[in-house]
Amino acid sequence: QTTKDREELKKKIAAYHERDIANAIVESDKTVRKCIYDILDIADIAEIFSYIEEEPGKYLEEMPIEQAAKVVSNMDSDDAMDLFEELNEEDKYKLLKRLDKEAKEDVQKLLSYEEDQIGSCMTNNYIVVRNDVTIREAMSTLVKQAGEHDNIQTLYVIDENGIFAGAIDLKDLIIAREHDNLQDIISSSYPYVYEHEKISECMEILTDYEEDSIPVLTQDKKIAGILTSSDIVELVDDEMGDDYAKLAGLTEEEDLNEPTIVSMKKRLPWLIALLFLGMAVSSVVGMFESIVAVLPIVICFQSLVLDMAGNVGTQSLAVTIRVLMDENLSGKKKIALLFKEMKIGFLNGASLAIMALVFLGVYIHLFKHYAWISSFLISGCVGISLIVAMVISSLVGTIIPMFFHKINIDPAVASGPLITTINDLVAVITYYGLSGLVLIQLFHI
Amino acid sequence: QTTKDREELKKKIAAYHERDIANAIVESDKTVRKCIYDILDIADIAEIFSYIEEEPGKYLEEMPIEQAAKVVSNMDSDDAMDLFEELNEEDKYKLLKRLDKEAKEDVQKLLSYEEDQIGSCMTNNYIVVRNDVTIREAMSTLVKQAGEHDNIQTLYVIDENGIFAGAIDLKDLIIAREHDNLQDIISSSYPYVYEHEKISECMEILTDYEEDSIPVLTQDKKIAGILTSSDIVELVDDEMGDDYAKLAGLTEEEDLNEPTIVSMKKRLPWLIALLFLGMAVSSVVGMFESIVAVLPIVICFQSLVLDMAGNVGTQSLAVTIRVLMDENLSGKKKIALLFKEMKIGFLNGASLAIMALVFLGVYIHLFKHYAWISSFLISGCVGISLIVAMVISSLVGTIIPMFFHKINIDPAVASGPLITTINDLVAVITYYGLSGLVLIQLFHI
Repeated sequence: QTTKDREELKKKIAAYHERDIANAIVESDKTVRKCIYDILDIADIAEIFSYIEEEPGKYLEEMPIEQAAKVVSNMDSDDAMDLFEELNEEDKYKLLKRLDKEAKEDVQKLLSYEEDQIGSCMTNNYIVVRNDVTIREAMSTLVKQAGEHDNIQTLYVIDENGIFAGAIDLKDLIIAREHDNLQDIISSSYPYVYEHEKISECMEILTDYEEDSIPVLTQDKKIAGILTSSDIVELVDDEMGDDYAKLAGLTEEEDLNEPTIVSMKKRLPWLIALLFLGMAVSSVVGMFESIVAVLPIVICFQSLVLDMAGNVGTQSLAVTIRVLMDENLSGKKKIALLFKEMKIGFLNGASLAIMALVFLGVYIHLFKHYAWISSFLISGCVGISLIVAMVISSLVGTIIPMFFHKINIDPAVASGPLITTINDLVAVITYYGLSGLVLIQLFHI
Repeated sequence: QTTKDREELKKKIAAYHERDIANAIVESDKTVRKCIYDILDIADIAEIFSYIEEEPGKYLEEMPIEQAAKVVSNMDSDDAMDLFEELNEEDKYKLLKRLDKEAKEDVQKLLSYEEDQIGSCMTNNYIVVRNDVTIREAMSTLVKQAGEHDNIQTLYVIDENGIFAGAIDLKDLIIAREHDNLQDIISSSYPYVYEHEKISECMEILTDYEEDSIPVLTQDKKIAGILTSSDIVELVDDEMGDDYAKLAGLTEEEDLNEPTIVSMKKRLPWLIALLFLGMAVSSVVGMFESIVAVLPIVICFQSLVLDMAGNVGTQSLAVTIRVLMDENLSGKKKIALLFKEMKIGFLNGASLAIMALVFLGVYIHLFKHYAWISSFLISGCVGISLIVAMVISSLVGTIIPMFFHKINIDPAVASGPLITTINDLVAVITYYGLSGLVLIQLFHI
């Protein structure tokens, strides 16, 4: 391989987007990878490695440790941290020791945060200017820092004590005239988050202010780092993915490539909770055995009533959780939401009840050979149970997550099993209770 | 009110972030709003209005129509479009007529896309340079365009035919020397989407390449517009919110402030589908009436088996849908996923079966006064049904969304009711079938 060949090859590789090269690295074999590490610059490899999501450590270990340390030192601090989290303790230690001083401090800083704190996601890739400089000085600070930091759309401003004092839109700096006052283009109301805030509690600021990047401040209002626009996209994606997973009864989002046992562990806790709560429902159903013994047809529609109650409860739950996550609701608005949910439950319940009355009545008469009157009495019981169960399910599906949210337990995790069980109980009691009362005691069907 | 007072007040208002002013506008009364419209500049009002999400049209109507037209002309084209969608036909027409020429064209362009096409979300707020200019010329193009367009982190490059030719990171332009070649800092592998692509199919490009903005191209590779970082955040948020809503059985995401009837309509379709599918399940349960008549205790555990099957199916469904959305799976990977899901279903099923065997056996003996052997035969039936139902539910929960995805039907919408029903049927047949066979025919309990 001559130097010219190398240059040629390097150019060819560089024509691809880093993310695509990352994908190619994952899919090639070891010799090809070694060749790529050999040809590309450290900065390029660092950029490529920030795109490798599955076991980046595995590929990093294929390099000489000195090169690996240089690559990691060249990465944005949050990407380096993501990579560190994938390493085993020994490799972590070996690598950390060899990072350059600044990178080592940055990574150690990020590792000091809890996983659910916003500080753990920030990067040191930002440009900072003092608020008492001139336009020209700000511009030259920018040019000086831009080599190392490529998030330049927004410049962060600090005062003489290092306190965060706002942000400058680069556009405003570029179109400013030399003798304009820098103060006039600083936006002092720029949104920010604190380093120890929980990620889930920052989402409103990250999404609603529509800024490209958001500074992360220490308790005494100094800039600890920033969240770039791709950090924000990732955070929103993860946060919503987590909510989604929890609604489906998974403890956290799953990954296609994780081992079976890991996936199993994410699903089992919820299932065990539901098994025991389900046993409670079973024992309540058991109390109505006598009704079933007299009128076996009622068991046909148990699953129908329970399923519908469950579905309505889940709908209310999902709506309530999203509302709780997205907005700060006043007590008045919460009560309004509660009434709205119950109204929807009632209206939908009534619509379904009418359909159930008609279709099930006909079905019972034709296929189960009950008299017309008895048939419609039975289907009427199903219909009324549907209305009652759906109204109460809406209520439960709204109140329970509000309650958990109030006492600071994640409603997305805790509400699911509890709501399913309560709704099952309500539906069972309503349905069998009504059937026993009306069909057996009143009409002696 | 003197001019000085006005200036003072304007300064005070400008010290707030536009999003906070937008919130204040929504919460103040009409006189305060009129005062704000009166004091602030058109550009500021335009920026503020892009943050008003609920009925911006209502507030726009409080201005003289000429001022409203100026405000809308000053908005980014996608924000203007969002606002247009909220207006009634008459107001839309009146306003559109008065927009300045460029804004009118932009809005009409965006209105020409389907709602689910990525083109409907783009903005004209971007800077474009020719690929054959010098560094200095590129810089002066930037300064000239920056006044109107504030997304300057990335400059888009076109060739002499107006064809998209890549992008320049502003950082690279700033640190470049005057006599460097512009070609060297153009990234020719910059990702892009086509204007008529479906939003849901662009998500991978929007999130995985981690770029601040993504260009939207016409079919002949000219730049039609771009998606800014805040557009991307919003798209990810909406897309995931939609998936979440669909998993919960809502046809689309709900809004806190929408009328009851609108919310009702979003929920009813799924409920009606489930009612009729539930009737099918009911008629199958009906076929086992004779077993229940002989051994009423079996109905106690019907809800348990059905609920568990349903939960496992939902878990598999959620995992499969997320995987299908996020990645392009090969056939081999799909089969691997299928086996993994079934393995998880079996392992979780077995764990739960053992618990059910032990706890239900004791429960049946103590509270239902069956002999020890009969008790454990019954609880054993429940356990085995759990395993069978959970394995099949995992299979169904994985195959059905894959099938819908294959035939280009949104799996998130279609899979839910179908999976619930199939799983209910499987669980009912397994449980009652097994009970009838083992408990009644074999052991005559």
